[in-house]
Amino acid sequence: MNRARVLLYDSLMSYAVISTWKMSLNGALIAGGVLKNGGTTLEAIKAGINDVENNPDYLSVGYGGLPNREGEVELDAAIMDGSSGLFGGLMGVKGIANPIDVAVALSKKRLNCLLCGAGAEKYARLKGFEFKNMLTEKAKKQWEEQEVKDNELLSLASYNGHDTVCFAARQENSLAAGVSTSGIFLKTPGRVGDSPIVGGGLFSDSDAGAAAATGDGEDILRGCLSHEIVRQMEGGRTAREACETALFNHLKKMDRKNLKVGPISLIALGADGSFGAATSLDEFAFIYTDSDNPPEVWIAGAKTGMEKAAAERLNQYARD
Amino acid sequence: MNRARVLLYDSLMSYAVISTWKMSLNGALIAGGVLKNGGTTLEAIKAGINDVENNPDYLSVGYGGLPNREGEVELDAAIMDGSSGLFGGLMGVKGIANPIDVAVALSKKRLNCLLCGAGAEKYARLKGFEFKNMLTEKAKKQWEEQEVKDNELLSLASYNGHDTVCFAARQENSLAAGVSTSGIFLKTPGRVGDSPIVGGGLFSDSDAGAAAATGDGEDILRGCLSHEIVRQMEGGRTAREACETALFNHLKKMDRKNLKVGPISLIALGADGSFGAATSLDEFAFIYTDSDNPPEVWIAGAKTGMEKAAAERLNQYARD
Repeated sequence: MNRARVLLYDSLMSYAVISTWKMSLNGALIAGGVLKNGGTTLEAIKAGINDVENNPDYLSVGYGGLPNREGEVELDAAIMDGSSGLFGGLMGVKGIANPIDVAVALSKKRLNCLLCGAGAEKYARLKGFEFKNMLTEKAKKQWEEQEVKDNELLSLASYNGHDTVCFAARQENSLAAGVSTSGIFLKTPGRVGDSPIVGGGLFSDSDAGAAAATGDGEDILRGCLSHEIVRQMEGGRTAREACETALFNHLKKMDRKNLKVGPISLIALGADGSFGAATSLDEFAFIYTDSDNPPEVWIAGAKTGMEKAAAERLNQYARD
Repeated sequence: MNRARVLLYDSLMSYAVISTWKMSLNGALIAGGVLKNGGTTLEAIKAGINDVENNPDYLSVGYGGLPNREGEVELDAAIMDGSSGLFGGLMGVKGIANPIDVAVALSKKRLNCLLCGAGAEKYARLKGFEFKNMLTEKAKKQWEEQEVKDNELLSLASYNGHDTVCFAARQENSLAAGVSTSGIFLKTPGRVGDSPIVGGGLFSDSDAGAAAATGDGEDILRGCLSHEIVRQMEGGRTAREACETALFNHLKKMDRKNLKVGPISLIALGADGSFGAATSLDEFAFIYTDSDNPPEVWIAGAKTGMEKAAAERLNQYARD
């Protein structure tokens, strides 16, 4: 094989995917396949997130997501293409089978690309997207068992261990990020966190990197963390350094303001080929795969940095 | 008067207000009065924005705002307290007389503080906020006269000269920013721009500064411009330098992505006592007042920098 062919081959195959929580393992495999076959970053992210949205076992995303205080499943999703600068997003929508699909469609428009509530549902209906009852029996039962009180701490405790699915993908020199979530269990109807919001829950600039966030959305938004991570990468930091710096600075600032923040976990891909994560949790699982590596579970920890999960550790690890 | 008294006096009176468009002149006077009398930044911003929301002559904010494509007035508002890090916001709500008041109420909560659509309206109703028909005869007539086509350029042309009201206020060492808007005339129902979104339409950190944005919201969001301005001030730039740098860098990036962006105008107050603005328009009017200066109209221009508006210029200048 001559040098030119090697370069061509490398170039065609240079892709990467990072995603949040162990629940995205299969989705990352699918997304990697899309990129390997020459698909775009948006196609890969859509396919990866669809796998999580469609799985009723995951209680924080799409079908099977836990409902709001009034027992209704309200969904948020968004995607940002770091090459065109375009984004699309949906906030507080009910009954849309795959919110990320609508976000992808909206990301083809420069204006009117971020829609909320009934208007967003109407748009999805007009454009022919699938609707279905997103409340599974399992999620309904969990809602019925939960004593519903006007107590946010209670609702948060019940939310433990579940969270937004975030994907970032790179194909050649093009980067994108996407997210989908049903938000906090027992949230106030209409509540929107960081997920569908460019800058907060996701951000991408192909000249610097792509980033996304999961955790207590309001605490992520107030630090504009995905934008901050990408700006740190623009300044020369690797994806991991950028995530760690953004999180460390934010926690320090909030501490200075005497604001006690909830859990925050961050992932990123750099335009330099780097990948990384940071978390305020003891343990945050994420998935990474690229042209040379199959999808594997990595564990990041507030005190331990990040490392590939050992086989025996994986067996113990909760499904999502 | 001895030195100690002078210092005390200066300290008690050290406030500043900056706001967008000439329509906020009276609101800035009111907001300055609130601060002069020892009110908080949030109280001042609320009072200033209320004045604009309640005036039916202003076709882009609150009562009298121009409706969406279907003839309904949909409103957005948000506020961020740079001292506590807390924020509150409403997106795509109908019939709420003063959206900024609900945003202020929501900003007392750490979670469930950003609400959209019907859920947000329900919250406002439960909390006893005033509802009224926000569509004036004047706005309705303008909607009826506008040939409604699925043509965004058409809708944008009709939007010329009207925009989001943004306030930033400083009281002693405390900074905040707030915004209120009816969004783009003939927008898709449910459309949300940058205005109610922390990082995009507004951002505040009392250790660095406060900033807010007006113009084509999606183009502002994709640069996270209010967060970017505050980060630039954190890095040592004055408010004006920060606005100009954020805008210049963003326009350069979007140009590199071949994305043609619409008008963007930015305002900021620095923790260092500075104030400033930047715009991509030929002319953008803003108001500034502080402990030592009554509210005055300033004009910023893409090519001309910023200066106090001359008296004869003011007489010619369109009302808002």
